[in-house]
Amino acid sequence: MPNQSASPVTAAMLVIGDEILSGRTKDKNIGFVADYLNNLGIDLIEVRIVADEEEHIVDAVNALRARYTHVFTSGGIGPTHDDITADAISKAFNLPCEFHPEAMALLTKHYKARNMEYTDARMRMARTPRGAKLIDNPISIAPGFIIENVHVMAGVPVIMQAMMDALAPSLKTGTKMLSQSVDCPFGEGTIGGPLGEIQDRHPNTMIGSYPQFRDGSYSTQIVIRSKDAPAIDAAKVDVEEMLARLKSSK
Amino acid sequence: MPNQSASPVTAAMLVIGDEILSGRTKDKNIGFVADYLNNLGIDLIEVRIVADEEEHIVDAVNALRARYTHVFTSGGIGPTHDDITADAISKAFNLPCEFHPEAMALLTKHYKARNMEYTDARMRMARTPRGAKLIDNPISIAPGFIIENVHVMAGVPVIMQAMMDALAPSLKTGTKMLSQSVDCPFGEGTIGGPLGEIQDRHPNTMIGSYPQFRDGSYSTQIVIRSKDAPAIDAAKVDVEEMLARLKSSK
Repeated sequence: MPNQSASPVTAAMLVIGDEILSGRTKDKNIGFVADYLNNLGIDLIEVRIVADEEEHIVDAVNALRARYTHVFTSGGIGPTHDDITADAISKAFNLPCEFHPEAMALLTKHYKARNMEYTDARMRMARTPRGAKLIDNPISIAPGFIIENVHVMAGVPVIMQAMMDALAPSLKTGTKMLSQSVDCPFGEGTIGGPLGEIQDRHPNTMIGSYPQFRDGSYSTQIVIRSKDAPAIDAAKVDVEEMLARLKSSK
Repeated sequence: MPNQSASPVTAAMLVIGDEILSGRTKDKNIGFVADYLNNLGIDLIEVRIVADEEEHIVDAVNALRARYTHVFTSGGIGPTHDDITADAISKAFNLPCEFHPEAMALLTKHYKARNMEYTDARMRMARTPRGAKLIDNPISIAPGFIIENVHVMAGVPVIMQAMMDALAPSLKTGTKMLSQSVDCPFGEGTIGGPLGEIQDRHPNTMIGSYPQFRDGSYSTQIVIRSKDAPAIDAAKVDVEEMLARLKSSK
């Protein structure tokens, strides 16, 4: 893995679209990107959702690209008036937003082959900040783009997923976060004290507990995460001993 | 509606939790809150997701509470070591985080009635910034809380939803956003140009178009939103005329 880094590789995601904030569309991209980056050893640290408002997009992109190794955006790169992501990203980078020659060639060919008019609206999809690198879109051709550390993708989940696959091989990645889960029949109120002590004894792990509330009572899933497999194993031994102790004292 | 305001009432949501960013848990609260606020006439302008890291929570809460009428948070108010939301919110407001007398009374009574020990871990759930007002939790008792314009709720969806119901009657609300949808058999590339012109002629509406990609071709749902019902009707007439024109020219 030529791009794998020993130091943490971080990321933020920016979801762009009024339709998510109005509740009309339920986002399906955040969970996908979270899983995908986790598998690549890229730590997703922050997600933001903003409306199709240039100022909001510019502010968010500039805040996030300064702070994290990678930024991934979804939404707002279609052919209509409310698709303003290319303009906003250009503005964030202080670059002109212009027709990308490769994107123009791709789309010209695509619509010609289908006997469809290459309208002004469709040409909007060929616009990128000057100097951007395209992200392949095997599904509907209109590309995403990369400018510095910002990866701009479509909002339609099936297309966004194909774009992630297209760009992933060239991403700088880190050491993969590993995890192990332990099912716990007790609620967090019972295990909270001793689990905190186990966390203190295993600082190289992150121990999370996730309550499930069913039929009026709680159970918990305990998840131990680390980039160091033996550290997880050691913490897990302590968690299992704690659970055995609690069970025998019931 | 005594709390209804003529000027826009805005909101941000802050989702707190490593488990969302790692992909382990798929968020179900954002879509719920988006729908809920939309129905109350509160405009959800921004969402952020951050990890269980004090500094990240403090920064996000302070950025959002200064900018929007309301902030709603979900997650991190349980009994374990990684539930640090009460501490982080207190720090954001520069207030001590302390046992809330009413919350202590509620939880003492609750565990006593169930013959369960009121452990140190469970007592964590009675901590709030000094002066906070509690949010009722009819499901599992441990309350949320309100400090100034920040509403702090549980992350477990069924509990968060009950807390929204509990706090909604006292929220300052605005004029409800209305919307109408028009199904469009054409892709965005076909309608993008004329739809942009319609948007220009109807500045008091927000016209969105949402592509659906199925079986290799696009269709679109056109959504017209406004707080002014006649403005929506007028824009819709233009949209329908445009579609009729496109159909007859096929």
